[in-house]
Amino acid sequence: MQSDANPIPTAPEAAPIQTDVLIVGAGPVGLFAAFEAGVIGLSCQIVDSLARVGGQCIELYPDKPIYDIPAIPSCTARELVERLMQQCHPFEVPIHLDQRVMDVTQRDDGRWTVRTQQGMVLDAAAILLAAGNGAFLPQRLMLPEAAALEERHVFYSVAKLADFADRNVIVAGGGDSALDWALALRNVAKRLTLVHRRNGFSATASSVDSMKRAVAAGEMDFVVGMIAGLDAPEGTLRSVSIKHVEGTSELAADMVVVLYGLVADLGPIANWGLDIRAGRVEVDTSNYESSRPGIFAVGDIANYPNKQKLILSGFHEASLALRKAYAYAYPTKKRVHVHSSYDAKLAERVQASAE
Amino acid sequence: MQSDANPIPTAPEAAPIQTDVLIVGAGPVGLFAAFEAGVIGLSCQIVDSLARVGGQCIELYPDKPIYDIPAIPSCTARELVERLMQQCHPFEVPIHLDQRVMDVTQRDDGRWTVRTQQGMVLDAAAILLAAGNGAFLPQRLMLPEAAALEERHVFYSVAKLADFADRNVIVAGGGDSALDWALALRNVAKRLTLVHRRNGFSATASSVDSMKRAVAAGEMDFVVGMIAGLDAPEGTLRSVSIKHVEGTSELAADMVVVLYGLVADLGPIANWGLDIRAGRVEVDTSNYESSRPGIFAVGDIANYPNKQKLILSGFHEASLALRKAYAYAYPTKKRVHVHSSYDAKLAERVQASAE
Repeated sequence: MQSDANPIPTAPEAAPIQTDVLIVGAGPVGLFAAFEAGVIGLSCQIVDSLARVGGQCIELYPDKPIYDIPAIPSCTARELVERLMQQCHPFEVPIHLDQRVMDVTQRDDGRWTVRTQQGMVLDAAAILLAAGNGAFLPQRLMLPEAAALEERHVFYSVAKLADFADRNVIVAGGGDSALDWALALRNVAKRLTLVHRRNGFSATASSVDSMKRAVAAGEMDFVVGMIAGLDAPEGTLRSVSIKHVEGTSELAADMVVVLYGLVADLGPIANWGLDIRAGRVEVDTSNYESSRPGIFAVGDIANYPNKQKLILSGFHEASLALRKAYAYAYPTKKRVHVHSSYDAKLAERVQASAE
Repeated sequence: MQSDANPIPTAPEAAPIQTDVLIVGAGPVGLFAAFEAGVIGLSCQIVDSLARVGGQCIELYPDKPIYDIPAIPSCTARELVERLMQQCHPFEVPIHLDQRVMDVTQRDDGRWTVRTQQGMVLDAAAILLAAGNGAFLPQRLMLPEAAALEERHVFYSVAKLADFADRNVIVAGGGDSALDWALALRNVAKRLTLVHRRNGFSATASSVDSMKRAVAAGEMDFVVGMIAGLDAPEGTLRSVSIKHVEGTSELAADMVVVLYGLVADLGPIANWGLDIRAGRVEVDTSNYESSRPGIFAVGDIANYPNKQKLILSGFHEASLALRKAYAYAYPTKKRVHVHSSYDAKLAERVQASAE
C-alpha cells in the first residue's frame, strides 16, 4: 500500500473487545463475579496482571486451609479457586492474564474504553474492580540510585540466563524464587553471590540444602547482609555495598537480581478519578458503585463503613454490583429475578459443562 | 414448703438461657451465623419455629439443585444445610427447634429478654433475626366460622389417630401430607372423605396410587371441590358445604383436617417495634442493624435498597451484623480480625470436630 503525503499514521489498533462487564481481577471474587454475570445474562471478560488465576489467594497462601467460606468447612485457597473456575466454566468467560489495566476513558455514550499496559483495548458498559489489594508487582530495592539501573544492572526477574553469562551476579532474597534463581545462575555467572538479611530462609528445605551444598562446593557464595548502596559511576554498576550487623563490605557486581517477593499496589487505578481512601475505592453499600457511576469495586479493593476483608463479602458485593451493572448494559430491559433452582437454562448449562 | 398468707406466686420460670447472640432461624443463614459467631468469639443459641433445621430451603425445595452458592457449582438444599451443620459443628451451638419467638423486652442494661410461645426464656446481648420469610404456619381455612372450631372440629395437623375414631372425617388438600393422613385416617374414621380442588395431586405418585386403590375398594371417598362453608349449629360441626365447578353439595362431617401446606408469616416479630416495610425488617447496610439498636436482620427477612434474596447475601449480612453485635456483648473489648487461615484455635476446632 502506497503512503500519501500526509504523515504516516501510527499502526491502527486492533478493534476493542466488546463486552457488557469488564472484570479486573481473576481472584475468587472476580471468578465468582464472572459466574454471577452469566447467571443474570451479562457477557464479561476478565483481565488480571498475574500469569495465573487465583489472585492473592494463590500468590500468598495456596495451600493454607480456609475455614470461613460458607458451606465449605475447610478447603485450601487452591481448591477454592478450582471450585470457582468449575462454577464459572459453563459461561466460557475469556480470562486475559498478564494484562495490567492502565487507563480508562468514558465515551459520550457512557461506555468505557480500557487499555492495558500490554496493548489490549476493551470496550465495556461497566467495569467491576475485583483487584484485591491492586496489581502484584515485585518489591523494589529501596535505593534512590536503583531506578536508573533497572533492566541494565538491576533486575526483578530473570528473562534469559544467557544475559548473565560471565558476569558478577548478586541475587538478593531468601524465598524460593531467590534460591532457585541463585542456583540456576551459578552455572552461567562468573561469580554468583546470594545476599540475604539473615541465615534463615522461607524457601523450601530442599532448595536451602542445595544452596548450602553449592556454597560448600565453592560454586557460589552466601553473604548475610542487606544491599545498602549501588556504586555505578557513569551509569555502569561496579560494586554493591552490603550492610552487615557490624560494618559494611563492598562486593564487585555487574548485575543484581532482587527477588524480595511481590507487593500489591493500586497502581494506575489510583489515577482513574475514583474516590480513594487508604488505598481502597470508596463505594456505596447498596450497589458497590464507586464515585464514578458505571465503575464498581468489590472484595478487598472496596471500602465502606465496617468493611471486612472477607471473601464471602466480595461474593455478595459482586452480586449486587452486577445487578446495577445490568442497567448500564441494558438500560431499557427489565432484569427478571429467577432463583437458580428454577432456572432451567442455567441447569442445562451446568449439567452440559459437567459432562 | 409452707405457703404464707400472701397470694401464692405463679410458678417461677426457669432461669433464662444466657447467651451473647440469640439467632432466630435455623435456615442456611442462621446456621452460618452460628459458625461466624464462633469464629469471632461470640456464644450463641438458635431458635426455630420448625421441627428441623434448614428453614424454607428444606420445607420448600429440599431436593432441587442450587447453583449459586459460591464455590459450590451444584448442591441440593438438603446438602447445603448438611454442609452448614458440619461447618458450625465445632462450636456446639444449641439449636432449639419447635420454638416460636413471641415477645422481646430490653432491660435497663441493654440486654434483651426473649420469650417463646413454648415458654423458653433467653437473655441475649444482641438478637440476629435470620427468620427468612418469618415463621412457617399451616395455611388456614379462609372461612370466618373456622377459627372458633379450631382444635375441636377443624384441625391443621393430626396429633393422635384415635381422636378421629368412628367419626365422619374430611381431609382437605392434594399434597403428600393430605394423602398420607387421608390413607392413615381411613382405617379409624367412620367415613373418610378426601376433598381436593382438582383431580390432580402434588403428592408422590405412589401415594396417589394408594389413594385411588383405597377409593376403588370403597375404603374412602374422593370429592373434587373446595370447602365453602362449615355448618356448626351451637358450635358443633354437622356438615361441610363443598363447592364444585357446577353447584354445591353438603357432606356430613364431625371433623375436618385441613392440610393446605405451610405459609410464612412475620408473626409476633411484627410487634417488636422494628421498622417494617412490605413484611421485611428495614436495616442499615453497613451493619444490618434494625431500627432498634441491638436487633439485627439478615437474609430474606431483611430489607434495604436493592436487597436481593440470595443466600450468599445472607452470609455477608450475618458476618457484618455479628461484628457489630460483638460490641454489644463486649463493649470494652476490641475484636481482633484474624484471617481464618491464620487462626490456629479455629483450625484445631475444625480438625477435632472432623475426627
